[in-house]
Amino acid sequence: MARASLRDSILEAGLKVMVRKGYAGAGVRDIVAEAPAPQGSFTNHFRSKEEFAREVLDLYFARLKRLVAEALDDGGLSPRERLRRYLDIITRRLAGDEFSRGCLIGDFSLEAAAQSETLRARLGEIFAEWRSPFAACIAEGQAIGEIDGAFAPEELAEFLLSSWEGAILRMKVERNGEPLERFKRIAFATTFRDPSK
Amino acid sequence: MARASLRDSILEAGLKVMVRKGYAGAGVRDIVAEAPAPQGSFTNHFRSKEEFAREVLDLYFARLKRLVAEALDDGGLSPRERLRRYLDIITRRLAGDEFSRGCLIGDFSLEAAAQSETLRARLGEIFAEWRSPFAACIAEGQAIGEIDGAFAPEELAEFLLSSWEGAILRMKVERNGEPLERFKRIAFATTFRDPSK
Repeated sequence: MARASLRDSILEAGLKVMVRKGYAGAGVRDIVAEAPAPQGSFTNHFRSKEEFAREVLDLYFARLKRLVAEALDDGGLSPRERLRRYLDIITRRLAGDEFSRGCLIGDFSLEAAAQSETLRARLGEIFAEWRSPFAACIAEGQAIGEIDGAFAPEELAEFLLSSWEGAILRMKVERNGEPLERFKRIAFATTFRDPSK
Repeated sequence: MARASLRDSILEAGLKVMVRKGYAGAGVRDIVAEAPAPQGSFTNHFRSKEEFAREVLDLYFARLKRLVAEALDDGGLSPRERLRRYLDIITRRLAGDEFSRGCLIGDFSLEAAAQSETLRARLGEIFAEWRSPFAACIAEGQAIGEIDGAFAPEELAEFLLSSWEGAILRMKVERNGEPLERFKRIAFATTFRDPSK
């Protein structure tokens, strides 16, 4: 029990430190200090920083999926409104950190994918899994004529999530929400406009 | 003369290593080995890794601006075709590295902006300068009715460049050009569609 909980504390600490400092920038020393945990406990619980980072990424994605479900499973909203709701939920989260921290999936895609084949492969799986409920929501929107049907739902879902990562990237430089709001304004008036209106 | 040229070699080496390994991941040792230059020469020429990285970023941006000019100053193309041309030129560059390396501006935005106020401030200036010729090109396209006028040119330029960074981010995970091609297909059929057609 105690060991399992120490392991969890180190993972939680890893998530905090890696969102702040990136993959290469997050030292094991910083992570155990954040937990806090004895220095030796890291190697007792994790085979390598790479394996550890994969678990941290999985922890991050598990939580993100709850936010995806919160937005996309909301039966009171139309498909297009649900997409918008997701982006608003994430905006609120990012605002909570004063727009200084981004998305670990995006951070690792740019920084860690080139350093670690394990992380790159996992990121590929994560993007595919992440895209899937968005593609389903977009397909539903297309079926009722609320979203243009010129592109396949998977294509539009990829476009939405990767462009959104671009807006988060821009936000990290500006340290305000304007790049996120701009993205929503333009995307929902063009690519995701309601063609029936 | 010899000193100036060693300084330039270290900067060139820094650009190579930082595009590959990021800001935190690029060690001074890697950089001088890549140059190649004696270990001590780094501190002779640069005050800190942060100052060095700012110069590397400036070097990268100076080259990028030449590609921007190559595309956007091409008088034989319409404004909308020039935007497309820019993305095609960058795609070709990224293909040359087998889609394993991205854009240093995007990399630093996600990774280094949180670590260094100097780099974050410089990235903000770079985005503003980078956006400017795109906004001018978009304004020209709007004036001739080739690009929809519902959004300000600066807004659309920001949207284009940040979403493109998102596509590059996605490319680094997939290691192929599909995320870039998808972005172009969708962006030029929706946000940047020709409303006269």
